Amino acid sequence: MRKHRLFTPGPTPVPTQSLLAMAHPIDHHRLDEATEAIKEVSENLKLVFQTDNDVMILTSSGTGGLEASVVNLLSPGDRAIVIRGGKFGERWGEICQAYGIQIIPIDLEWGKAVDPSDVDRSLREHGDVKAVFATLCETSTGVLHDIKSLAEITSKTEAVLVVDAVSALGADELRMDEWGVNVVVSSSQKGLMTPPGLAFISFDEKAWRMAESSRLPKYYFDLKKARDKGLQGSTPFTPAISLIVGLRESLRMIVNEGVENVIARHARLARATREAAIALGLELFAERPANTVTSIKVPNGVDGVKFVKMMRSRYGITYAGGQEKLKGRIIRIAHLGWMDEFDVLTAIGGLEIGLKEMGYPVKPGSGLTAAMEALM
Amino acid sequence: MRKHRLFTPGPTPVPTQSLLAMAHPIDHHRLDEATEAIKEVSENLKLVFQTDNDVMILTSSGTGGLEASVVNLLSPGDRAIVIRGGKFGERWGEICQAYGIQIIPIDLEWGKAVDPSDVDRSLREHGDVKAVFATLCETSTGVLHDIKSLAEITSKTEAVLVVDAVSALGADELRMDEWGVNVVVSSSQKGLMTPPGLAFISFDEKAWRMAESSRLPKYYFDLKKARDKGLQGSTPFTPAISLIVGLRESLRMIVNEGVENVIARHARLARATREAAIALGLELFAERPANTVTSIKVPNGVDGVKFVKMMRSRYGITYAGGQEKLKGRIIRIAHLGWMDEFDVLTAIGGLEIGLKEMGYPVKPGSGLTAAMEALM
Repeated sequence: MRKHRLFTPGPTPVPTQSLLAMAHPIDHHRLDEATEAIKEVSENLKLVFQTDNDVMILTSSGTGGLEASVVNLLSPGDRAIVIRGGKFGERWGEICQAYGIQIIPIDLEWGKAVDPSDVDRSLREHGDVKAVFATLCETSTGVLHDIKSLAEITSKTEAVLVVDAVSALGADELRMDEWGVNVVVSSSQKGLMTPPGLAFISFDEKAWRMAESSRLPKYYFDLKKARDKGLQGSTPFTPAISLIVGLRESLRMIVNEGVENVIARHARLARATREAAIALGLELFAERPANTVTSIKVPNGVDGVKFVKMMRSRYGITYAGGQEKLKGRIIRIAHLGWMDEFDVLTAIGGLEIGLKEMGYPVKPGSGLTAAMEALM
Repeated sequence: MRKHRLFTPGPTPVPTQSLLAMAHPIDHHRLDEATEAIKEVSENLKLVFQTDNDVMILTSSGTGGLEASVVNLLSPGDRAIVIRGGKFGERWGEICQAYGIQIIPIDLEWGKAVDPSDVDRSLREHGDVKAVFATLCETSTGVLHDIKSLAEITSKTEAVLVVDAVSALGADELRMDEWGVNVVVSSSQKGLMTPPGLAFISFDEKAWRMAESSRLPKYYFDLKKARDKGLQGSTPFTPAISLIVGLRESLRMIVNEGVENVIARHARLARATREAAIALGLELFAERPANTVTSIKVPNGVDGVKFVKMMRSRYGITYAGGQEKLKGRIIRIAHLGWMDEFDVLTAIGGLEIGLKEMGYPVKPGSGLTAAMEALM
């Protein structure tokens, strides 16, 4: 008997009731039951986005949602600031460049958080910037960027702040309306505890105004169509209705717990994980760690790639390793979505067992003790 | 107790074993099990597409797959012939226009099939046409277009033939390689018996050659990335893995039955449905009816919109009505995907009961008798 446990920052475990909801016989997506599901999900997404703006549902990965924000806001030749501190910041840049947007990159060493004053300076230097593309949690490094400060800066300019909250929504604080974030993008398979296949996007008034003059080509990702259909509990094109039905269950759980409580739970689990890592003599990788995922430097003498593989095959525990230039250099442990304190104990226990097996000196229980102290 | 039965041309009923497969705990999409699922699904899709070319998997509705074919083949200002004989033919035109393609429409009365010689003539008149956009089954009218003849014509030119086989793949014959069709697009929620959320697309060599010089912008729908990742059992962006796992089950059923047998079954069910409608004194709408869906003119004195609503609420039977200009004018009965002869008896029995209730003269059992004669 080998139980499987997923500690990757997406996909995340899906609650059993959501999985079973998706196993219900499929219904037509233009009829009453589906319309009600879309309406309920749209309303509950607004609570999670902390916004009164409409949240639109796209059938795509999160990346489709990122692309939708670019093509609905901008026009060929526009200039945009892109904060690149990891794989997902770089993705913003790639999407912009694919559409002929001139990017002004703010490049960070991977693992570092953006200094908001650098964005402020760049906006002053380049008066014609239309958008600032940022990431709430840069999943590849585990860094949480200071979106609140960025929003304070952009709100004094003509530029819109567009935030990739794919991995962090529902785990790290993001107050779209209160902070004045103009565009937020997220997806189903992270904090929202649903399989991948749905992206969500919300525009505020400033973003919709900019969208009026956007001349980049779009059809499937045309958000005006998505907004208009969304108001009727519909979508412009056939939606992934079984995923929406699963999402309905997961969102009910989030709303019942309360969005603030959900975020507080993530903060608690993340703190316990960090304390445990430190107690084990490990070094945290992220300068400004997110609640979403904890990134830990692979200690000297341990093969990070082997460690992740071994934990999955021998113990059924799936951590994430590093991506691209961080391959083999970090271990990422997500405490994201359908997770509680006992899941964290499993994640830490696995770390103790696995590192010990790979020759790293571990005092048994030292990580778990630190985690318990943080949790209690 | 009210059983619900879906006779819409997508979504179609999903086999119980596929629904339950999707209820399995979610696994990470970059690990062995997911890789194996993607590889198996890709191979089996090639059997259904009747091609040796790779079939790429996109996380989107069918419309995303249509858009992917446009943006990967063409460049701004290119000219393309678009066969418009219903809602989905018109969609080809809308996508092309959104991307600055000059379209040469071949407009048909809804319910009519394209005359291939009209396409031949148009290609001769406009020597610089890059693509012909066609539809295998125009779902809005139930018409099957003669793709084989179109492929004979386009194969003698520089133009590629791009076929929307979203609704008809696995129901109506489409021999991609044998006929020389250059691009085929389909999706999960029709003949492939899986919930909506996945699109599939295959390019032949001629299409890939054209793609080399395509200058339309693309990122999420970049098919070169999808092809390269697909060869490794992967995808460029997080795929809707639970839908892929469901699709794996449904494709196993199709491959076990044999693609030719699956199409023959659809042909048989479609013929029985048509014979039943004629025996009931009804008129077929499509000039060249598909195996996918049978469209029947609403008889005088019957309110077509009311009929469809009443059948769903009173009998749990969901037919499709007409869309756009055909609203209230036709009833569409799909015999698509997870369907057998007894499902057809239900669909016909419902038609008899419902039309009678709405004042149309029905001799009880006359439609069913004609269906049985056709089936036996």
